[in-house]
Amino acid sequence: MVVVVMASGASNKQVAEVGQMLERHGFRLHRSGASGPIVIRSSGNVALADLNLTGYPGVERVVDVSVPYKLASRTVRVEDTVVQVGDVSIGGGRTTVIAGPCAVESRSQMMAAARAVADSGAVILRGGAFKPRTSPYSFQGMEEEGVALLAEAGRAYGLATVTEVINASSLEIAARYVDMLQVGSRNMQNFDLLRAVGQTAKPVLLKRGMSSTIEEWLMAAEYIMSEGNSNVVLCERGIRTFEKMTRNTLDLSAVPLAKSLSHLPVIVDPSHATGDPRLIAPMSRAAVAAGADGIIVEVHPCPSEALCDGKQSLTPEAFGELMSGLEIISRAMGRE
Amino acid sequence: MVVVVMASGASNKQVAEVGQMLERHGFRLHRSGASGPIVIRSSGNVALADLNLTGYPGVERVVDVSVPYKLASRTVRVEDTVVQVGDVSIGGGRTTVIAGPCAVESRSQMMAAARAVADSGAVILRGGAFKPRTSPYSFQGMEEEGVALLAEAGRAYGLATVTEVINASSLEIAARYVDMLQVGSRNMQNFDLLRAVGQTAKPVLLKRGMSSTIEEWLMAAEYIMSEGNSNVVLCERGIRTFEKMTRNTLDLSAVPLAKSLSHLPVIVDPSHATGDPRLIAPMSRAAVAAGADGIIVEVHPCPSEALCDGKQSLTPEAFGELMSGLEIISRAMGRE
Amino acid sequence: MVVVVMASGASNKQVAEVGQMLERHGFRLHRSGASGPIVIRSSGNVALADLNLTGYPGVERVVDVSVPYKLASRTVRVEDTVVQVGDVSIGGGRTTVIAGPCAVESRSQMMAAARAVADSGAVILRGGAFKPRTSPYSFQGMEEEGVALLAEAGRAYGLATVTEVINASSLEIAARYVDMLQVGSRNMQNFDLLRAVGQTAKPVLLKRGMSSTIEEWLMAAEYIMSEGNSNVVLCERGIRTFEKMTRNTLDLSAVPLAKSLSHLPVIVDPSHATGDPRLIAPMSRAAVAAGADGIIVEVHPCPSEALCDGKQSLTPEAFGELMSGLEIISRAMGRE
Amino acid sequence: MVVVVMASGASNKQVAEVGQMLERHGFRLHRSGASGPIVIRSSGNVALADLNLTGYPGVERVVDVSVPYKLASRTVRVEDTVVQVGDVSIGGGRTTVIAGPCAVESRSQMMAAARAVADSGAVILRGGAFKPRTSPYSFQGMEEEGVALLAEAGRAYGLATVTEVINASSLEIAARYVDMLQVGSRNMQNFDLLRAVGQTAKPVLLKRGMSSTIEEWLMAAEYIMSEGNSNVVLCERGIRTFEKMTRNTLDLSAVPLAKSLSHLPVIVDPSHATGDPRLIAPMSRAAVAAGADGIIVEVHPCPSEALCDGKQSLTPEAFGELMSGLEIISRAMGRE
Repeated sequence: MVVVVMASGASNKQVAEVGQMLERHGFRLHRSGASGPIVIRSSGNVALADLNLTGYPGVERVVDVSVPYKLASRTVRVEDTVVQVGDVSIGGGRTTVIAGPCAVESRSQMMAAARAVADSGAVILRGGAFKPRTSPYSFQGMEEEGVALLAEAGRAYGLATVTEVINASSLEIAARYVDMLQVGSRNMQNFDLLRAVGQTAKPVLLKRGMSSTIEEWLMAAEYIMSEGNSNVVLCERGIRTFEKMTRNTLDLSAVPLAKSLSHLPVIVDPSHATGDPRLIAPMSRAAVAAGADGIIVEVHPCPSEALCDGKQSLTPEAFGELMSGLEIISRAMGRE
Repeated sequence: MVVVVMASGASNKQVAEVGQMLERHGFRLHRSGASGPIVIRSSGNVALADLNLTGYPGVERVVDVSVPYKLASRTVRVEDTVVQVGDVSIGGGRTTVIAGPCAVESRSQMMAAARAVADSGAVILRGGAFKPRTSPYSFQGMEEEGVALLAEAGRAYGLATVTEVINASSLEIAARYVDMLQVGSRNMQNFDLLRAVGQTAKPVLLKRGMSSTIEEWLMAAEYIMSEGNSNVVLCERGIRTFEKMTRNTLDLSAVPLAKSLSHLPVIVDPSHATGDPRLIAPMSRAAVAAGADGIIVEVHPCPSEALCDGKQSLTPEAFGELMSGLEIISRAMGRE
Repeated sequence: MVVVVMASGASNKQVAEVGQMLERHGFRLHRSGASGPIVIRSSGNVALADLNLTGYPGVERVVDVSVPYKLASRTVRVEDTVVQVGDVSIGGGRTTVIAGPCAVESRSQMMAAARAVADSGAVILRGGAFKPRTSPYSFQGMEEEGVALLAEAGRAYGLATVTEVINASSLEIAARYVDMLQVGSRNMQNFDLLRAVGQTAKPVLLKRGMSSTIEEWLMAAEYIMSEGNSNVVLCERGIRTFEKMTRNTLDLSAVPLAKSLSHLPVIVDPSHATGDPRLIAPMSRAAVAAGADGIIVEVHPCPSEALCDGKQSLTPEAFGELMSGLEIISRAMGRE
Repeated sequence: MVVVVMASGASNKQVAEVGQMLERHGFRLHRSGASGPIVIRSSGNVALADLNLTGYPGVERVVDVSVPYKLASRTVRVEDTVVQVGDVSIGGGRTTVIAGPCAVESRSQMMAAARAVADSGAVILRGGAFKPRTSPYSFQGMEEEGVALLAEAGRAYGLATVTEVINASSLEIAARYVDMLQVGSRNMQNFDLLRAVGQTAKPVLLKRGMSSTIEEWLMAAEYIMSEGNSNVVLCERGIRTFEKMTRNTLDLSAVPLAKSLSHLPVIVDPSHATGDPRLIAPMSRAAVAAGADGIIVEVHPCPSEALCDGKQSLTPEAFGELMSGLEIISRAMGRE
């Protein structure tokens, strides 16, 4: 397949003209937003080379890609993508830390969590209000009330916010309150949801499926980007293997590999990967040393009382220690 | 947790009275339909034993279950469930064969496929019209036009029909045309979709996630059943392992295991499990010998021209041979 | 690589002459026994085609094989290999049952086990005397005393015998007492041991490594065969996956696949694969329905007192029932 | 089980007396060397508490361990073990780098490799002379000639040396030439070999099996230690998973986990884990950030001409860059 990469200054009109010309010649196209690259999906009535595409105003280059993902590929975009989440940047040589509880439980819990993580240097607050739970009888989240509390706590402590969305209705609600939408591991191949978040303008945190290959993960990013939203942050969170001493096996090699194949930022979730509070700090350091653009960590003001995943949550104190160690590695890596 | 199993002749009024009494004593309940079992989700203000529940009219027995699934469990229902799909039964000592192409492509393709599979003894016709595809650029299915063709072909050859649904809108469309709804491997933990099919009266074919444990699979069935729809058929379709000579590793031990843990019927999909036409017939025989209630097989009138999964589809001739071999094993197992 | 297949009636002298001629022309050879096929390992000073090999007396055909195993490949030998173990045959259209305890524990235990399995129709008696145990503090087997008891019990009830060997010394001892040598899962890539059993004339039962690919398994058979011993029986015994409800995941698709790639007989071990007595009978039936040439099952006169793997051993009664069910499937498959 | 830990100054006579006393009371023991801890394998005729063991001269403490490994456990020995390899230490707060080619191929290759890795700061030279190869037709190593060249190159550049042993004869040869013996991934459960290296006085580099759990890995160390050799260095080298973009999945969480469960040093092999030269430097940094005591890396003077694993070998230049990056992380971690 072939991607026509448009110059950054190309006008919508220039993009439209190139597209129409290709369609007149029988090519089937996929367009990602009014000014994004044009993906040529099937061949037309003439040879592509004969059209001299790079002669058209606004066309920067034409890339023939053999990988199944295109918009997510380094081949199509060489420079690192930096994703803006409220006032916070992810990617481009800094270490961004996202922290907060697994689930929003109450106003006091969120305020305490927000203060604690802000004090230690986190810049984005996490908290789940729509929970995908294995059992229909488990706590399913506080829904709209929860995202409102998350947003309030974020504002109070100057933190951007991210929450998981699981379907069209939770997406519609969350998009009104938070700065970033998360697609969880179990939904990484919920293509309907991927398209829906791709149609918003919000940045998306895309977790790797617990048994997805790196290629499938990049294809999931492609689904979002093919709808015109290229603010995707990839998140490695452990894969399912035979080893049972850790909840999953954190695949840190996926970090430099995904960053070499794609221009998107990659962060790491050591909490869900290991499920073991003792391993979260060392694996956070390892993530940054492997080249990750940040981490996302579960922190709860009182882990023993958490309604969800308490076992793997850090106390504010343990999170503070993690941040000190992380800063040293981050500086050693030449990061901000 | 505790399940109050009602007698099969219990009236709706009797069920309601037991429920109200429990709620008056502070118990939180989950009810599955007007006359189904009552799941007690959290303890109340008195000890359950003091209520002498089995003394109430309509109560058959009270089961304290430690497994996380309840309605799907053998403990709660001892007898095999038989699921009715149009005129066809799945479970209860017969071998039911579902067959047809991966994707609906055209009227002539579906008619040819339906005739071929009906001739060889299949009783349910499959065909995908809403396809969950790894790439946003792949063929995504014929949608409503496709399910209409599937239904037409089924009627023409006296076959019940099943198709995969992937979200609320495809579910709404499919439910108007076909006899059975399929939840695919990638959506096994799309809890929103599980609830939605649970709110219909249609039987559901629930594929095991490609890296789901047997317990997670039964929990997914529980999601559907907890909404009141207990017509669930489990389908083993291979799990993801290190072995790469087959597309997935067919986990046939899951068949007798799931049938011992649950009262639901279990069928096997050797096409997606192996991805290799040479292995489909032997693995179909093995499935029935292991106790499966049926199989679902991809058959295409012309595999080399299929838009999807052609490589693993059987020709009508190969399917005919498979059916002959299957009948011999089926009879040896004392099946109809 | 290229294999020169000699006619079955070729004399040792004919084989030697072809080999010497090739070596004179600079080819490096691997010979497997005095009359077996000649494997050409690297090219010589002339083109092989110029030598007109099939014109030489005793040469049947010349096969250019691209798979990494040669002697084990169907390409080199088209007909099924039948392996002779004492008076018993494995392969060639019959279902052979091997049974007995995990470990030899005492004379009375072995006599009781041998009588029980012979009564129900098993033809080979198993029993471990050299145990590869994960812990250095576990029972390590009765060693020579154990193999002597195994052999005595086999003789008493007209059964051939098989035992696992783990190194040169256990091999030397076992070869004096039993009819067949087993290479266990943990030793499947103990290349030293593979060569050693390849240098004996005893048939070898080669278990698949618990995380070995099918190709690695066939390569392990190739190691044995490349030393001149082609009496190898492959045994699928489950692979390591994320599913934890069974001890391993029995990969039955490996049976028809290995039999299509190789001419060697393939049997199945449902005891180690599932680790669950309830699953052994259904998976034995499934194995035969998938085309396996036999099964190997753990049977103990008194499982609750077993020193090793008691949990997964069948009682003589349960084994009797398994054999009845197996006979029906076996007959349905047209087996003896 | 119970371990009697002797004081570091206990005499052989004191150890013997405690042992004899326990045996007189019917306890079955396992002793690891003349002065090591005594493992009590089964209970005796009196209660252990009644014997007042800590009152005996030389006894430091009595530990009741529930984990299946004892001598390898942190419970039995609290302080980090530092393993001495020639003049080099592994463990105890330094980062030790082992480097060299996969296989010894010639004198000039080894001299070039040794000079290159010494120049960049490696302290131990690796090189395989006895190769466990999947195919019987692959290059099997230079054997004694190879270890002699390895030792010569080590002496010439002031490097300690390590080589893999695969059986009794290679062990006997290697022990005469090199400073450290390696047990490879495929032999991690070759219990015969584990015992044999346990009976030498050489330090042992024990690679994790490619599908071994962390517990099985520690049990393999226990086999070696139970023979009296406690100079064991654990090496994580990737596990087998469904992900195929890397050769194996490097399980870095195993590093802090093994170090919390055991007092033994843990190093990491990013070359075999990833099989991809681009990933070796980032994963080396990540290993040290996760707490590893060192790394082992494949370096070849000319990777494109290597007889074995050339694809994943680093050039001397790439290795030099890796070492610069590693030093920065190592210092950030407070290492020497």
